[in-house]
This record gives sequence, structure tokens and C-alpha cells, in this order.
Amino acid sequence: MLRTALAAPFRAVLAEHDLVRVAGAHDALGAVLAQEAGFQAVWSSSLEVSAARCLPDASLLGMSEYLEAAANMQKALSIPVIADCDTGYGNNLNAAHMVHEYEAAGITAVCIEDKLFPKINSFAAVDHTLLDINTFARKIEVAKSAQQTPDFFLIARTEALISGLGVDEALKRCSAYADAGADAVLVHSKIRTSEQITRFLDGWDGAVPVVVVPTTYPDWDARAAAAAGVSVVIYANQGLRATVSSLRDTYGAIFREGSSVEVEDRIASVQEVFRLQRLDAWKALDW
Amino acid sequence: MLRTALAAPFRAVLAEHDLVRVAGAHDALGAVLAQEAGFQAVWSSSLEVSAARCLPDASLLGMSEYLEAAANMQKALSIPVIADCDTGYGNNLNAAHMVHEYEAAGITAVCIEDKLFPKINSFAAVDHTLLDINTFARKIEVAKSAQQTPDFFLIARTEALISGLGVDEALKRCSAYADAGADAVLVHSKIRTSEQITRFLDGWDGAVPVVVVPTTYPDWDARAAAAAGVSVVIYANQGLRATVSSLRDTYGAIFREGSSVEVEDRIASVQEVFRLQRLDAWKALDW
Amino acid sequence: MLRTALAAPFRAVLAEHDLVRVAGAHDALGAVLAQEAGFQAVWSSSLEVSAARCLPDASLLGMSEYLEAAANMQKALSIPVIADCDTGYGNNLNAAHMVHEYEAAGITAVCIEDKLFPKINSFAAVDHTLLDINTFARKIEVAKSAQQTPDFFLIARTEALISGLGVDEALKRCSAYADAGADAVLVHSKIRTSEQITRFLDGWDGAVPVVVVPTTYPDWDARAAAAAGVSVVIYANQGLRATVSSLRDTYGAIFREGSSVEVEDRIASVQEVFRLQRLDAWKALDW
Amino acid sequence: MLRTALAAPFRAVLAEHDLVRVAGAHDALGAVLAQEAGFQAVWSSSLEVSAARCLPDASLLGMSEYLEAAANMQKALSIPVIADCDTGYGNNLNAAHMVHEYEAAGITAVCIEDKLFPKINSFAAVDHTLLDINTFARKIEVAKSAQQTPDFFLIARTEALISGLGVDEALKRCSAYADAGADAVLVHSKIRTSEQITRFLDGWDGAVPVVVVPTTYPDWDARAAAAAGVSVVIYANQGLRATVSSLRDTYGAIFREGSSVEVEDRIASVQEVFRLQRLDAWKALDW
Repeated sequence: MLRTALAAPFRAVLAEHDLVRVAGAHDALGAVLAQEAGFQAVWSSSLEVSAARCLPDASLLGMSEYLEAAANMQKALSIPVIADCDTGYGNNLNAAHMVHEYEAAGITAVCIEDKLFPKINSFAAVDHTLLDINTFARKIEVAKSAQQTPDFFLIARTEALISGLGVDEALKRCSAYADAGADAVLVHSKIRTSEQITRFLDGWDGAVPVVVVPTTYPDWDARAAAAAGVSVVIYANQGLRATVSSLRDTYGAIFREGSSVEVEDRIASVQEVFRLQRLDAWKALDW
Repeated sequence: MLRTALAAPFRAVLAEHDLVRVAGAHDALGAVLAQEAGFQAVWSSSLEVSAARCLPDASLLGMSEYLEAAANMQKALSIPVIADCDTGYGNNLNAAHMVHEYEAAGITAVCIEDKLFPKINSFAAVDHTLLDINTFARKIEVAKSAQQTPDFFLIARTEALISGLGVDEALKRCSAYADAGADAVLVHSKIRTSEQITRFLDGWDGAVPVVVVPTTYPDWDARAAAAAGVSVVIYANQGLRATVSSLRDTYGAIFREGSSVEVEDRIASVQEVFRLQRLDAWKALDW
Repeated sequence: MLRTALAAPFRAVLAEHDLVRVAGAHDALGAVLAQEAGFQAVWSSSLEVSAARCLPDASLLGMSEYLEAAANMQKALSIPVIADCDTGYGNNLNAAHMVHEYEAAGITAVCIEDKLFPKINSFAAVDHTLLDINTFARKIEVAKSAQQTPDFFLIARTEALISGLGVDEALKRCSAYADAGADAVLVHSKIRTSEQITRFLDGWDGAVPVVVVPTTYPDWDARAAAAAGVSVVIYANQGLRATVSSLRDTYGAIFREGSSVEVEDRIASVQEVFRLQRLDAWKALDW
Repeated sequence: MLRTALAAPFRAVLAEHDLVRVAGAHDALGAVLAQEAGFQAVWSSSLEVSAARCLPDASLLGMSEYLEAAANMQKALSIPVIADCDTGYGNNLNAAHMVHEYEAAGITAVCIEDKLFPKINSFAAVDHTLLDINTFARKIEVAKSAQQTPDFFLIARTEALISGLGVDEALKRCSAYADAGADAVLVHSKIRTSEQITRFLDGWDGAVPVVVVPTTYPDWDARAAAAAGVSVVIYANQGLRATVSSLRDTYGAIFREGSSVEVEDRIASVQEVFRLQRLDAWKALDW
């Protein structure tokens, strides 16, 4: 097969699993490897996509670059992409435009967050001022009103915990976002334990599913998250970080040794690359 | 600094080194890691760029996608990119257009090869028919005549050894290509030793520098290559292959364990990603 | 409304009309003006798209540039785009990739022709060698096998008349192309009358619908074409040519007069531009 | 010649003319026709580029789309492009990134304005709140500090008159912007006479050149503008508006008549399109 079957929409995948496990990626190759590992969806990560350009995750790339990355991944997958869409790339108009463009590109789930545009990455050591709750709720309404297919799925992400506003504010915001039409909420924390998240889950009324990103509290595993009421867990950037380590080691060894002999045993073969490119299926068309 | 200083052109780098050592990459992140490892130039590899999309290296992507990848790398580097331009993307007109576009994007070296368009990767198990020697020599002349700056550098690559035509044909072709204006020649072999390459070098008149890509004969190290008369050695795809292995292991472990705990020790930190994104320099502009 | 309703696929439009009338365009603005004039589909013209870049219609731009133009038009329309896809951008593999990409972008009809890649425009005074009939028939089969939705529609265009091979060869080729799975055939002529086309239509067995492009024989009007058995007529490049004349006159007058006073009466108002941009609908989201 | 000679930078063109006359365009074809009419530079207009997509001029397209349009024009010209860069696409970081990207693409002059991101077109009937004067001055400083070549030229545009803040505020802002490093100032007015502009010019200390855009006061011709002290006059969108009228008439006539006979006399020939594509020069390379 040249291509996988058309991917199921994220909404359908969520309906079929108690816990949807998601891996971050920034290109089709990484996305396919995540799929092969068993993940049920791929997070098109703004951090990863901007890092692949050696640019900060600070709204320097525009919607079209992020969309292109997400669309390139989706084309290679039979599982859905969830696109990290930052603030929706501006105001309500930008959010509506975003929905038009992502839907047209076959992306079935997006996530927008209640930060100001231009954003900066949540783990950067800076002040993170949030958008007013009503303004962001209105942005969600506008985005949902721009949707043209029933499958499209919007995740509203609050940065209340990142900004130090506390669990009650996170709950209040997520309730307002669900009321505004969000299909799920993502609550993000940067402390070293799951304590904020579990308090959030204890207080959550279950109006819509909850998504978490345990980058800073990896001890809290999938089983614990599911037991606590989480519906979607995203391993957002470990693939990128593995790539950095691996490239550093591999390039370092080749340069130091003056040859690739030492690394050959621990890197994939050219034939394995050909397999990921589906070379045989393509060749069968012509050669 | 937000950016590195403007990169020196490849022609200048070649003049300064007995042997220029080059690593393959497909995005700015990989390219910067190759630079940090000590390489003096980066090979924007068609195999890597197409594999990153999970598409075969068979002229499915067009010039604009390959150019964008090369330009994104060059913007992040202080060393030059050598762009793998396959056949020049068609006939003489395409080759002239290619030179216009790569020069305009700040790329100072390109490589074109004597295969037919559409090409397929040299290591694929198929017939590789070559362009007639005079036709390719004319393509080189046209490409060189389209050049607008003296820095621009064109490498002519022969696939004579890949196609089973032997060392004499490779020598004959490379001489004709040098006569047509090529600034260097690349001779590619897929056997498991350096035997074809060393015979080529023994017969080469030194009209222009010789470039090699020891993917299948890694035992022949940089010191040996330099001693035999090679000017540029390209480690073309080991970075990609390391990425595949690393992502497979990392995604596999996270999915199997239900958490990223096990992999945390062997992957780069988020702070290391921020460093590669030059986050502090960018933040200094505003926050 | 921010957007028109999703466009009907070309296949449905063809089923509803005895004669589908189509205008050429190269951007969304022109396409919307064609729709407002009453046309039932828009031809995303390679000549127009390349001319908009001041590049010849000779396969210098790649599939991605042509696709982007077609997709930008389709997003603004409630009628379908027919994408002029030249030779399918290479061999069978390129044709399959083309189908994947155009379908993914929401384009419901494409046209490929039996010229060699790289092509040159049919009206250019050069030799036009054609692809062997069986090779092009196989390309059609491969393209159709890559299709993922039943709506997708492939038009096979023969350049037999352009190449001086005569009406019998055109008929033979179109029959083979229909047998290979083409949903319609386009027969192109560059003589100053409809004589070749009417002879073709007299000999055509009606296996699939016939498309014509009366650029050089404009006297043969839509009524005559429909009566002779044509199903689709494309006015392929008159919009571009009108734009050239109009810009030449307008820029000339402004430069000569040192002001735009003289042209103001014959150019659209800024308010009319705002209407075409649907500014009021967008403003209603936020301001 | 395939290409015009490399364009002189805008800074050099400004030095050579008392009054630089500039026409707006959105693609290479329009830009070349403006050059052929005699204009000394081309304004890559955000209104035109967004209108070509049938999207409002409201920051829906991102920097990359505007840059691509400007770069495509510059590649076809021997006169410089001045790129309309709206607000600089966000904050100071975005402005620095913009300078990097436009310089890398060979654009030698850009214009940024003191509106908030996301912007809306100056002639839209909405409130236009401005950025604080010091914040915009700082943005200018950051943008200028990101510049890597001495040729790069930054025009600072004030919307003080558009926002109803009056001539004194416009003067105060332009002085601050010149002090911050702007190479020229653009003062924009939407009243039906040149009265605001002439009062501005009377009060201006001449620190840097003044640019005007007489869309709403076309009676004030180039001679009068030069006499009053203007250095650059931009006819920003008349080409687009002429295109709209022309396409409406042409498509309307073809659809109504069922043929293009009526319009043939008033539209450019296919041969004229070929000339603009430089087809003969390209053909000489191969055919």
C-alpha cells in the first residue's frame, strides 16, 4: 500500500478508548514511528515544530508552517493528529480562519490555549499572562461556529496552573470553556508531581473529557492517570529530546572517529529507511 | 545572538581545508547539531528530506520542498549547506531555474547527478539508466551560465559506478563534467569496499576536487580518504538512521511502560532544547 | 458568511448540466469573479499560474505550487476547481502522488495530458513529442488506482492534434484513455477553426464526456459546442490576458499622469474589494 | 535574458531620485507590468495579497505568505520591492524574525506600522487603536538591530491620522520613530484631500524622508507631492482594483455571449503572455 487507509477522526478514537495515549512529533517519520509503537494519536507539537527550525516556541512561525507540519504527518498516518494550535494564532478571526484551514487539510482535532498572542512556551521562565476568561470563551464559540464537519474536535487548554493562578481558577476556566463549546479541556502543570492535576480532577464535573501532558511529572503513569479520570495523555516532546541526544552522539562519534563504523550497529539500516518510505509499494507502480 | 554570523560560502570553506567533512541532515535542528559536532558543511540530503515525509526518494517532492529544507538549515548555520539537487529537477530549463532559486535563497553549493528524471535513490534495487554524457555536460553548462554570484559552487555527480558502467566510464564522465564547468565531481559507489573509489582516484587528473559518500564502505576513514586524494567526504544519512532507531526505542519504551520515566535519563532535557532554540537571546528582546 | 458552502464535486456538477462552462483563473480573487459571472467550474490553469510568476509554462514550477494555487481557489468557491496537472508531474509514481495530494486538498477534478515531462505550453512554437499511448494509458490506470474517494474525477487530455498527429490518432488515444479509466477526455487543437474538433466529435463513440478549450477558435460558441456533443467548455486564459491589458493601461496612466485621478472611474472601489474579501462577515466576529 | 539583473536596493533608488514613484502589486506579473510602466519600486501590498486570496486584510495570512508574495515579485524585477509588513507580525521578537527572513529573501525595504496585532485594513470602518509610542519605537530599534546588511531599509508608518489623533500626534510619533532608527516615515491619511498631509509636511523637520499613499486624495499629484517635500509616493492598490473591474467585465461578457469573441480585441494576446514569461529566452536553453 502506498498510503494507509484514511485515518479515523480523533472523536471516534476517543470514543473507543478509556485512555487515548498520544505521542508528540514534528514530522511524518516521527509520527509513523509513534504509530508503530502503538500510540492512538499524534500530537503535532509547537515546541517540536519550532525546535526543528532552531526557533523558539514563541509564535515566530505562523499558522501555515504549523499546519503544514500537521498535515504532512496526517497524510502518512492511519491514526489522527491532534494539532497544537497555541492561541489560535491571534484573535477570534484568526481562530475561525484556523478552523477553516485545519479542517480543509484533514486535521480532525486541534487544541487552543488561553494565553496571549504572541505566546511563549509554557516552560520558559517568564510571566505568562492569560487572556480574560470571557474573551477566551468567546474565541472558543467563534472557532466552533466556523466548523464545517461534525467530526472536528476542539480542545481548550488552560494555562491557569502554569501562570500560578491555582486549581480553582483552572476549574472555573475549564467549566467556562466547556460551556462555550469546547469538546475537551487540557489542564497543564509544570510542577514535579501530579498533585495539581489530581486536585483538578477531583473537582472536575466531567462535563467534557480531560487531557493531560505529564512532562514534569512522568512518575504518574498511564494507569494512574486513567484511574484518576484522565481521558487523554500526551507525551509531548520526548521524541524530539531523544532525537537531540541521538544526533549529538552519532555526529560526535563520526566526527571524532573519522568514520561511521562505530555507529553502524546502533543506527537503523538504509533498508529500514526504505521500508518507512514504503519504497517497494511505490516501485511496484513503475519499475 | 539570535542568529549565527552569515555563513561562509562553501567555496571558501573548501579552500581552507585539505578535507572538508560533511554530515547529512534534513532540518535545522539536525544541521546545527552537525555543526556543533565539528563538521564543516551540511549535506541537505534528498533521502533524508523525503524520508522525513515518509515518501520515497524518487522525485515525488519537488524542487520547492527540497529548497525549503536546505534554506531552513542554512538560516540556522554558520557553515555552508551543500544541497543535494538530484537531477536538477528535470531538463536544462529546470537546472537553470534551480540555480536561480538556490542562489536567491543563500545556498552556495549544489550537487546534480547524471540520472534521468524522475530519479530513484541510488541504493534502491532497480535499473539506473544514466543521462547521455553530452546531455548532462550541457546541463552543467546551462546551470553554470545561470549563476549570478562568483561564490556559487556546482558539484557534478556521476552514477556510473552505481549503474555498473565501471571506473573508466566514471572517469570519462567526470572529465567531461569538469570540462563543462563543474566545480567538483562526486563519484558514488555502492560496493562494500573503497576499491572502485581508489581506482577512480588513481586515474583522476585532478582537474577539480573529488567528493565521496562512503555509506557502503565506512571502514575507509577520513584519513585514508584524504591520503587518497579526496577533498570532501559526506556522511550522508547516518543522522536520519540514528533518529529512526532512537525514536523507535523511545516511543516503544514510553508506550510499553505507560510513562516516560525510563527514558528521561537518556534523552536531552527541555532546557537543552531551549538552548538549541536560542531562547534566551530571543527572550532578551522583549520579556 | 465567512465562507461559501462546501463546493459540490465536479462529478455532480457535470451530471446536472448539458454543458458545463468553465473559466480559467490563477488565484481566489479571479476564481470568485468567474463564479459570480455564472461559470459552473474554474480551471486552475498552468499557463496562468506560471505567468503570475513571470515564468514559462514549462514544468519549472512544481506540483506543490500548482496545487497551492488550486487549493487557494477551491477554498474561496462554492463551485469546483478542475486542476490542470500537466503531465502528472513525471511518471506513474508522480501521478499517484498527485492524486493523493489533490484529493487531500479537496480538489475533485484534475486533468493530465499525454506530453513528456518536462512539458512546454501547447501554443509554444516547438516540437511536442507525445508519450507512447500505452504508457499514458498505464499512467491513467495508476492515477485512478490511487484515488480514495468516489467523487474524484480524472480528465485525460490528448495533445495529438497539437502535435500534428491528426484526428484519427486523437480518437485512438482518447478511446484507450477512456478504457484505462479516464472519466472524461480533453481534445486540444490550435488551428483557427473548430474543424478538427468537430471531426473528432463526429468520430467519438461517447464512452466518456468530451472537454474542449476553444482558445484559437473562439467563433465556435457554447451553443454550437453543446450541439456538437461537447460536455465541458473551458475559457482557459482570457482572464489572465484581460488582467495584463488592464494593468498595463492602469499603471501606464498613473505613471504618465502622476496621479490615479484618470483611472478612478474605471477601476473597482476599495469598498468593492472589501466585499470580495467578505470583510463585514469577518468583522462581525470581533470588532 | 532569463532574469533581469539583480535589483538595486531601495536605498540606492531613493538616493537617485527626488521622488520615487511606487505602484502596488501582489504577484510577479503585476510587478513586472508596473516596472514596464516606469515605476521605480513596487509596493507588495497586504491589501492586495490578502484580496488575491479573498481574505480580509486582517492578519489572517501570516508572515510567510506575505514574504512569499514579496519574494516572488522581487525575483522577477530589476527594481526593488518595498514590503508592506503590517505590524511586523506581532511583538519585538516577530519584528526581528521578520527582518531576518526578508533580508534572507533579498527584500531591501520593509514598512511596519504602529497598529496592534492583529491589524485590520486602515480603510475599514472600525476603531484603530495604536500601539504606545515608546513600544513601537522599541520595536523599530529591535528590528534595526536584527539587520545584517547595510542596504536594508525600514519605513515606520504611523496610523495617527487614520485613528483621528491629529497631525501633532503624527509628527510626534514620526520624530520618535526616526530617533529610534527608522530610515523613513510613512504618514497615512484617509480624508479626501491632502490637507492633513501638507500640514504634516509643513511641520516635519526632515530628519528622514517622508512616504505618502494618496489613495483617498488622488488629486494631489506627484508634482505637488514632490514640491511639498514628499520623497516617495505609493499608488497602493489601483492595480488590484483595475484587475477586479477587468475580470468582472471579461468573465461577464464570455459567459453572456457563450464565447470569447467579443473580448478578444481588448485583451492581451497569448504571445504577449509568452513575452512576459520570457519564453524565448527559456526555450533557447533547450528546445
